[in-house]
Amino acid sequence: MTNELNPSKRLLMGPGPSDVHPRVLRAMTTPLLGHLDPEFLKLMNETKDLLKVVFQTENKLTIPMSGTGSAGMETVFVNLVEPGDTVIVGVNGLFGQRMVDVAERCGATVIEVTAPWGEIIEPTAIEKALKQNPSTKLVAVVHAETSTGVMQPLKELSKIVHVHNALFVCDMVTSIGGIPTEIDDNDVDAAYSGTQKCLSAPPGLAPVTFNHRALEAMANRKTKVQSWYLDLSMIQNYWNDERFYHHTAPITMVYSLREALRIILEEGLENVYARHKRFGTALHSGLEAMGLELLVKKEHRLYQLTSVLIPNGVNDLEVRKQLLAKYGLEIGGGLGELKGKVWRIGLMGYNATQTNVTQFLAALEDVLREQGFECKPGAGLLAANESIKEQVTV
Amino acid sequence: MTNELNPSKRLLMGPGPSDVHPRVLRAMTTPLLGHLDPEFLKLMNETKDLLKVVFQTENKLTIPMSGTGSAGMETVFVNLVEPGDTVIVGVNGLFGQRMVDVAERCGATVIEVTAPWGEIIEPTAIEKALKQNPSTKLVAVVHAETSTGVMQPLKELSKIVHVHNALFVCDMVTSIGGIPTEIDDNDVDAAYSGTQKCLSAPPGLAPVTFNHRALEAMANRKTKVQSWYLDLSMIQNYWNDERFYHHTAPITMVYSLREALRIILEEGLENVYARHKRFGTALHSGLEAMGLELLVKKEHRLYQLTSVLIPNGVNDLEVRKQLLAKYGLEIGGGLGELKGKVWRIGLMGYNATQTNVTQFLAALEDVLREQGFECKPGAGLLAANESIKEQVTV
Repeated sequence: MTNELNPSKRLLMGPGPSDVHPRVLRAMTTPLLGHLDPEFLKLMNETKDLLKVVFQTENKLTIPMSGTGSAGMETVFVNLVEPGDTVIVGVNGLFGQRMVDVAERCGATVIEVTAPWGEIIEPTAIEKALKQNPSTKLVAVVHAETSTGVMQPLKELSKIVHVHNALFVCDMVTSIGGIPTEIDDNDVDAAYSGTQKCLSAPPGLAPVTFNHRALEAMANRKTKVQSWYLDLSMIQNYWNDERFYHHTAPITMVYSLREALRIILEEGLENVYARHKRFGTALHSGLEAMGLELLVKKEHRLYQLTSVLIPNGVNDLEVRKQLLAKYGLEIGGGLGELKGKVWRIGLMGYNATQTNVTQFLAALEDVLREQGFECKPGAGLLAANESIKEQVTV
Repeated sequence: MTNELNPSKRLLMGPGPSDVHPRVLRAMTTPLLGHLDPEFLKLMNETKDLLKVVFQTENKLTIPMSGTGSAGMETVFVNLVEPGDTVIVGVNGLFGQRMVDVAERCGATVIEVTAPWGEIIEPTAIEKALKQNPSTKLVAVVHAETSTGVMQPLKELSKIVHVHNALFVCDMVTSIGGIPTEIDDNDVDAAYSGTQKCLSAPPGLAPVTFNHRALEAMANRKTKVQSWYLDLSMIQNYWNDERFYHHTAPITMVYSLREALRIILEEGLENVYARHKRFGTALHSGLEAMGLELLVKKEHRLYQLTSVLIPNGVNDLEVRKQLLAKYGLEIGGGLGELKGKVWRIGLMGYNATQTNVTQFLAALEDVLREQGFECKPGAGLLAANESIKEQVTV
């Protein structure tokens, strides 16, 4: 017989999933309602409303798709792109690369605008690509690149894209609930996200939002959406008042998302953003005080996900193994061209706390010392605490 | 502020979701492991092994996809079908229709072999279609048609399909864990299922299984799978020993599936099937003794999902509303051409019990009487109990 479920204690400070808020775990023990039960329909409406607040949008079509973040990515592309469309994708990390793959599978001609991993996509580079490809339908960038820790500025880019009459699409898997997404202020036409990062819910849903321009593009399609499962022309009739059955909604996951969003709004969006910034900045200060180098330059760093360069002579896998074995602490390795070159440290949602900054810096110092990497004892912790103090008094 | 989650008590006796086993709900409160944590990889292997036993197969590629049952359907078609392929689909209900839609979106030429809703697809009709379309790549039928309550016999059909060198695909969303699926004995090449029916877990995963012929068809593809999210050529490298990251697995849902499968195997597959048969048959007897007529003739009835004709003069919606209001009891209405003509009653997994048969028949009798439909008091319950007694003594 297979044993009872009994995993070891973990602190998930990698690129996600991050730890789920205990109230969210508890909400998931709630017995199911049917997916057409009037009480469930009410919970769906509430979840949509909460999601709109957290996405910072009035978009009517703001719903969770029944899959993980990558299903959200696919949702945006299959619904907005038709074979033969030209799409520009900003590629400065793994998730930009993934968008290229997904868009090509939709039959798009994809123009890649690249930047080194760890840097932002320059608006001028997108502008140049748009001028060279005036019939471009859609431009997509990653707001919070989980593979590098880069925060992509959106406002200027959005203006450029709209001057050229294209749709502006953003990957917000790691940004939602961690940094302002400002869908409406940034005039983002469509965005997708995930639940397992700063929302502190388990992976399994992909919140998406589409504005009037995106809806118009969908209405003007000449071909059927290639994915039945992700076809918003049908799915929105379940989430809207029509309540047409499409597929059985993942009830428990909707419970979890609703609870996660409630928790965020109880704290207040501005407070949540400030907390991520406070402890993320403290982590940056601490790591630098230990003599480590961050991949991303200061003005483009995410607070919720930090890439730190692995020092010369230190064994990547051994450090991560020791952190897990000795402290139950998970951080992420590098992906793609950053494999073996960086560690990725998450301070997301429920996990963005003083305790976790402290625990991580102390554990890392210990494990790095075992690897022969010397740093002034306690320097990281001291710098982190100084940083926190400064921000609180500001 | 949005209220705390506090739904009313329900007994879910519709076509699914059905009630989740309390142990499964409890397993879902387990804090997350990372999706590449060695402990999680072990849980994934265990889940695959359990799933193989419950699917009754040795297929190495037997995994849960990160979506609901319909994502399982799409998984099978996007991975096995390429544009221009000919596909034969048996259509005797809504889910056959859905397969046609999904296959067409993959660029297939679809031949529909139809039967009236409530009847099986005759093997001879499939044989005829195969003779007329000798280059057919794949034949698909629904094993347990949730829209009608029909159990499709598979063995003869499977032989015919293989004589014509096509792949045999089955929708097993409602069959898994309720009636024998016998993937290997029935020589089914690919099948998909869901967690929210007889497995008594929440909706959110779609277990699929592919045999050597299906793997070969995938290996021989000339085109990329149109869905990145459901592309098994990549996903199997995460579930196999390679452990390549594809998308973040829905950890909590994997916990829930593992627990659900453990519970089934503790009871024993044969016992689980016998229990569904015992209480399903009792429900059929009870309904008939009340003077109601079942949609499906006896030899083709499912035990876990029963369609009963709505008597003349009885208001469909009012009866369902009363059952919900007075008893917290959910049953399903008809779909598609059976809308307003049948009710669908589920006795799935954890819910297939004496208590629920009794509760449902008593509640239905009460509510039907309010609607002016007269039956001999207690006749349904008596017949159901007699039926159970007979089966236990056999």
